[in-house]
Amino acid sequence: MSFIRNILKNSRSGKDGNFFLELQQILGFKPKKKHYYIKAFTHRSMNLRDKKGNPINYERLEFVGDAMLSSVIASYLYNQVPHGDEGYLTKMRSKVVSREHLNELGKELNLIDLVNSRIPKNNFGNNIHGNLFEALVGAIYLDKGYKICERFIYNRIIDPHVDIERLEGKVISYKSLLIEWCQKEKKTFNYDVYEDTGKDALKHFSVKLSIADKVVSKGRATSKKKAEEIASKRAFFAFQGKMSRHLY
Amino acid sequence: MSFIRNILKNSRSGKDGNFFLELQQILGFKPKKKHYYIKAFTHRSMNLRDKKGNPINYERLEFVGDAMLSSVIASYLYNQVPHGDEGYLTKMRSKVVSREHLNELGKELNLIDLVNSRIPKNNFGNNIHGNLFEALVGAIYLDKGYKICERFIYNRIIDPHVDIERLEGKVISYKSLLIEWCQKEKKTFNYDVYEDTGKDALKHFSVKLSIADKVVSKGRATSKKKAEEIASKRAFFAFQGKMSRHLY
Repeated sequence: MSFIRNILKNSRSGKDGNFFLELQQILGFKPKKKHYYIKAFTHRSMNLRDKKGNPINYERLEFVGDAMLSSVIASYLYNQVPHGDEGYLTKMRSKVVSREHLNELGKELNLIDLVNSRIPKNNFGNNIHGNLFEALVGAIYLDKGYKICERFIYNRIIDPHVDIERLEGKVISYKSLLIEWCQKEKKTFNYDVYEDTGKDALKHFSVKLSIADKVVSKGRATSKKKAEEIASKRAFFAFQGKMSRHLY
Repeated sequence: MSFIRNILKNSRSGKDGNFFLELQQILGFKPKKKHYYIKAFTHRSMNLRDKKGNPINYERLEFVGDAMLSSVIASYLYNQVPHGDEGYLTKMRSKVVSREHLNELGKELNLIDLVNSRIPKNNFGNNIHGNLFEALVGAIYLDKGYKICERFIYNRIIDPHVDIERLEGKVISYKSLLIEWCQKEKKTFNYDVYEDTGKDALKHFSVKLSIADKVVSKGRATSKKKAEEIASKRAFFAFQGKMSRHLY
């Protein structure tokens, strides 16, 4: 443990001094077993080893994180898609945890800014974003257990990004669905977008969606487009009965 | 739920009347959300459907159970094999959750005796044993959550069947290792095996392993051979320092 403390002191001080502060904002809770998170953001190029000579980097944690993602998404899909058979559920899950999607999630959280590496950050391939995301999920599980890890996956993936209609290819964009519906119903609509970073480390945007001059939903995310999509999705679920006739 | 109660009444009564009793002995706890276990032991040949027309059988539960097995084994291996990289851990896990191994586990628990099916039991292929085992794990997770599911996997797989030396191909049989060691050290040994089914639904055997006329460990399992292997493994870990020189 004193070894870990040294890493903590040496390689996570100075410009990385706010590592745990930034991390806490991403996690939404205070990390306890800090060594897991140090590992989760240590690239193999650092060539760190523990006392027994075992390498310290995030690659083993990816293995754990990948498994936890699969489990949480599996039980979510089991409950949400009662009509889907085993093959169908497997296909749906692979869409959610696709390399591409995990890379997006890692990018959205700017995880690469936290990584400790001897390689310049722009020399990494695209997959590092997803790998860091998986490793972070693994670290959360090992630090806090399944429940907290599950909550993180819900907060960061399922709630903002996963919905069954979309996965099933029925909805491409909730915003376009909403606009189409408003035009057909001859209702005015307005997306009021503003910067709303607050205390977050990352830039955030908020949006208020009004229909017929009444605010019907809100959204907040790291891009304007995403915030609008979240607000549109919420409006969709609020008006589900009325709007869903457009879906099929 | 009344539908499930009907299934419970009709297809799990009579000769299946002791379904939940037998199940409880396998689980080591009292099932709560019983409908999951009914599903876990309903074969598709029963053609059961819920009110919405979704099929009731164990296939979707296999998807959940498979994911839970992967997660629990992943975090076990992460902790137990600190020297193993991601690829190595993946390889080790696939040995533990191989189709063959899962079939063995399902067979050992006689899960097929609990299955509700229109197909005669000897017409099933070998994979039904593993499929039922996976579905049962899925049902446990959905009924009781991750912690209890993890404990079941430890009790039924990891503790009795998984050890790293063996997975790494270093130990083929603890019994042969133990005998070899006793012979070299000129110590007498004795496996005292007796039937010990007790209140279990399945026949069980217990064994007391004595070295130099002193009982050093015990084992209990559904076959004599397995009980001896468990006792030998326990003796091995008790004498680890002394015996492990034989390993390398």
